[in-house]
Amino acid sequence: MTTETPKIAIFPGSFDPFTVGHESVVRRALKMFDKIVIAIGFNTTKTAYFPLDKRIAWIKKVFADTDRVEVYSFKGLTVDYCKSVGAKYILRGLRTAADFEYERAIAQVNKAMFPEVETVFLLTLPQHTPVNSTIIREIIKQGGDASQFLPSNYNIRE
Amino acid sequence: MTTETPKIAIFPGSFDPFTVGHESVVRRALKMFDKIVIAIGFNTTKTAYFPLDKRIAWIKKVFADTDRVEVYSFKGLTVDYCKSVGAKYILRGLRTAADFEYERAIAQVNKAMFPEVETVFLLTLPQHTPVNSTIIREIIKQGGDASQFLPSNYNIRE
Amino acid sequence: MTTETPKIAIFPGSFDPFTVGHESVVRRALKMFDKIVIAIGFNTTKTAYFPLDKRIAWIKKVFADTDRVEVYSFKGLTVDYCKSVGAKYILRGLRTAADFEYERAIAQVNKAMFPEVETVFLLTLPQHTPVNSTIIREIIKQGGDASQFLPSNYNIRE
Amino acid sequence: MTTETPKIAIFPGSFDPFTVGHESVVRRALKMFDKIVIAIGFNTTKTAYFPLDKRIAWIKKVFADTDRVEVYSFKGLTVDYCKSVGAKYILRGLRTAADFEYERAIAQVNKAMFPEVETVFLLTLPQHTPVNSTIIREIIKQGGDASQFLPSNYNIRE
Amino acid sequence: MTTETPKIAIFPGSFDPFTVGHESVVRRALKMFDKIVIAIGFNTTKTAYFPLDKRIAWIKKVFADTDRVEVYSFKGLTVDYCKSVGAKYILRGLRTAADFEYERAIAQVNKAMFPEVETVFLLTLPQHTPVNSTIIREIIKQGGDASQFLPSNYNIRE
Amino acid sequence: MTTETPKIAIFPGSFDPFTVGHESVVRRALKMFDKIVIAIGFNTTKTAYFPLDKRIAWIKKVFADTDRVEVYSFKGLTVDYCKSVGAKYILRGLRTAADFEYERAIAQVNKAMFPEVETVFLLTLPQHTPVNSTIIREIIKQGGDASQFLPSNYNIRE
Repeated sequence: MTTETPKIAIFPGSFDPFTVGHESVVRRALKMFDKIVIAIGFNTTKTAYFPLDKRIAWIKKVFADTDRVEVYSFKGLTVDYCKSVGAKYILRGLRTAADFEYERAIAQVNKAMFPEVETVFLLTLPQHTPVNSTIIREIIKQGGDASQFLPSNYNIRE
Repeated sequence: MTTETPKIAIFPGSFDPFTVGHESVVRRALKMFDKIVIAIGFNTTKTAYFPLDKRIAWIKKVFADTDRVEVYSFKGLTVDYCKSVGAKYILRGLRTAADFEYERAIAQVNKAMFPEVETVFLLTLPQHTPVNSTIIREIIKQGGDASQFLPSNYNIRE
Repeated sequence: MTTETPKIAIFPGSFDPFTVGHESVVRRALKMFDKIVIAIGFNTTKTAYFPLDKRIAWIKKVFADTDRVEVYSFKGLTVDYCKSVGAKYILRGLRTAADFEYERAIAQVNKAMFPEVETVFLLTLPQHTPVNSTIIREIIKQGGDASQFLPSNYNIRE
Repeated sequence: MTTETPKIAIFPGSFDPFTVGHESVVRRALKMFDKIVIAIGFNTTKTAYFPLDKRIAWIKKVFADTDRVEVYSFKGLTVDYCKSVGAKYILRGLRTAADFEYERAIAQVNKAMFPEVETVFLLTLPQHTPVNSTIIREIIKQGGDASQFLPSNYNIRE
Repeated sequence: MTTETPKIAIFPGSFDPFTVGHESVVRRALKMFDKIVIAIGFNTTKTAYFPLDKRIAWIKKVFADTDRVEVYSFKGLTVDYCKSVGAKYILRGLRTAADFEYERAIAQVNKAMFPEVETVFLLTLPQHTPVNSTIIREIIKQGGDASQFLPSNYNIRE
Repeated sequence: MTTETPKIAIFPGSFDPFTVGHESVVRRALKMFDKIVIAIGFNTTKTAYFPLDKRIAWIKKVFADTDRVEVYSFKGLTVDYCKSVGAKYILRGLRTAADFEYERAIAQVNKAMFPEVETVFLLTLPQHTPVNSTIIREIIKQGGDASQFLPSNYNIRE
């Protein structure tokens, strides 16, 4: 083994809502990391659609089968949160080329501010490519049934 | 620790030539993996500019300071090579959106053929974004000095 | 003929305002479809710049020369509106690669929710590539003359 | 019905080989067009991997269940071939943003040369996004099993 | 010399805040133009984070070493402002492919409205690629230290 | 005036063939530069479709109306050719996002090798967006009429 230090990654996002695509990325990344902290950025000025406490509770339920996934909210810079939980890795899923350019800018700025952090990207599965939180949230707002895009035990009506 | 099995990644490519961008990706990935196998795809029909044995020797010299990087050539499918060396991870660097779309197709096809394999992407550093082997090779062909784009102890005149 | 059922497409959007690019897409698509329903998404929370009734009236005037184009507003999911008017096709124009990625996500989610629907894309003409409603609206807001980007009989001062 | 003239589309390509993605596009487009002519561009200077007669025979077998799909090869400009078979539509599938930019240039040049022709784009299904002929051909060249990416009754060993 | 008329370019933006990337573009462009007018678009409806007078004062200080850079705010269309200051060139920096598509639409619409104007693009330096005002502003909002992304004599705490 | 030194730009390419898009970029750039050297890269290993001497003669004829455009071929690195003709600017046209990513890599590597050189980008006009040499050459190879995509006095049959 290369190191005794546990490999901790944070998976930051607003998860408004958390989708099947997010779940798949976390489950596949669990093979690489010892612990994954799902970190919900808490922004006082920008209002989310789903309440923060609901989002935390729903995601916790999705990963009730493992103690290697933790779910928290955080304020401030992502890199500061990494330092506070001892994470050297930021995990992100990539769906499209547009995603990529946005993610690259964030990741390179994060590395400029905290050189020891590394952003690690996994691809979403092909069938999850169109699933993004904005579209899913819009379906729910319009009264549609979005359950096929949400984790199987994720009940947004709870 | 989550597992006793060593985490092995292959870093496949033609590396014609291996650049500072490639070196940076491997060195940063060494924190995540126990062993990285740099795997030079050997294609009988498509001729490389630099001879295979030279490329292997040069890359070995770059990583002479660690025994956790190995350098080999391989024939056939990348996923078959992964199986043969026990690698569950394919490591790739991402520079641009155009890169991303190409890499995504390859990675998703690889996963369809070998579902246990995961392609893991790191970003190149901002200053390495324009450095790709095709451009560097062209500079060398035209008699230019490409040393700033190559690993410091990588002597293509050797 | 392959079928007796009329081929109905909806052309959804906010059309705030409807541009020469939109008109061109609809006119060219009229050769493929028996009826095109221009469907203005009605969103109670997001305010449009031009009033809904004005937008409907202006677009109706553009297509006063044909009874195969109808103009309505709708609430709720696009796929539900398709079902309600018997449309099996969603028509969209594509201008740029950024457009494409956004449109692809929407279209693939729509198909996941209503598998019989097919989104059909036509290209905008080269000279219409830079014409998008956001830019045109901004020109009008700033007091500029945007008439070259609007259908010839589309009078936003009416 | 808007017209008595049958709606004919050509689906041009080299199909080296024809994939599940191609099949899906043609089958979905059959609802929109009366006849689809799969038109294999025949290029004397650029050599395909699979022989032309094999490609024609394989594709014919895929669509043996319908007489509304025809398979031919052609030389010369795509727009000239459209005129010769009476096609006013060129059908293309779109997978990625990189695809889109290439397809847009071809389609806009075609329209400049033959203004009555319209290129109509359908999306590939999400699960077919990574499937392109170049990657599939490479798998076959390397001795891999590509059957999951080929139409079910398409036997490249025949 | 080709002309006696001074070559004047405007460099329009909201500069909320002005970054090292912006500074680099202006300094390199000073070799091509006789005068560069940094023109801060003044939008009554959209609120900037930093006050307009602060942004003007900060940028003036950055270019205190040259009288060929002027800093103003403006209302209305960019092309009208060009006319009012006698500028035939609009200067813009390009970082990413996403930037490019947005900039192209704006530039082509500007040219349609004022055919004598030419938008001239310079690239940002590789190390400035991830630096955009939105990300930098977010860092400052969260209380982070963004000084490495700002011009050296640009003190946002003044 | 900022400087007594004439502003010289090179416009490098293979121009196989030179198109209306190329002509438009050069004519618009003539307002910015004192001299533009159209520099045809001469590559001994890669064969062009049109002979080098023909391409030079055709382009010279296009710009017979001005003595501020010169046409030459060159071998070796573009930056070395810049030095040899005293050019501090490399002029390039941008059509698409795919173009942009390729051009950015070349330009950033050129600047790394010759820091005084600046690559200056102009956009092609919207109607020229689909016109690229590869597509035009293919039309000519297939016996089609490409005259609408070529400069008006550019006779490829001469």
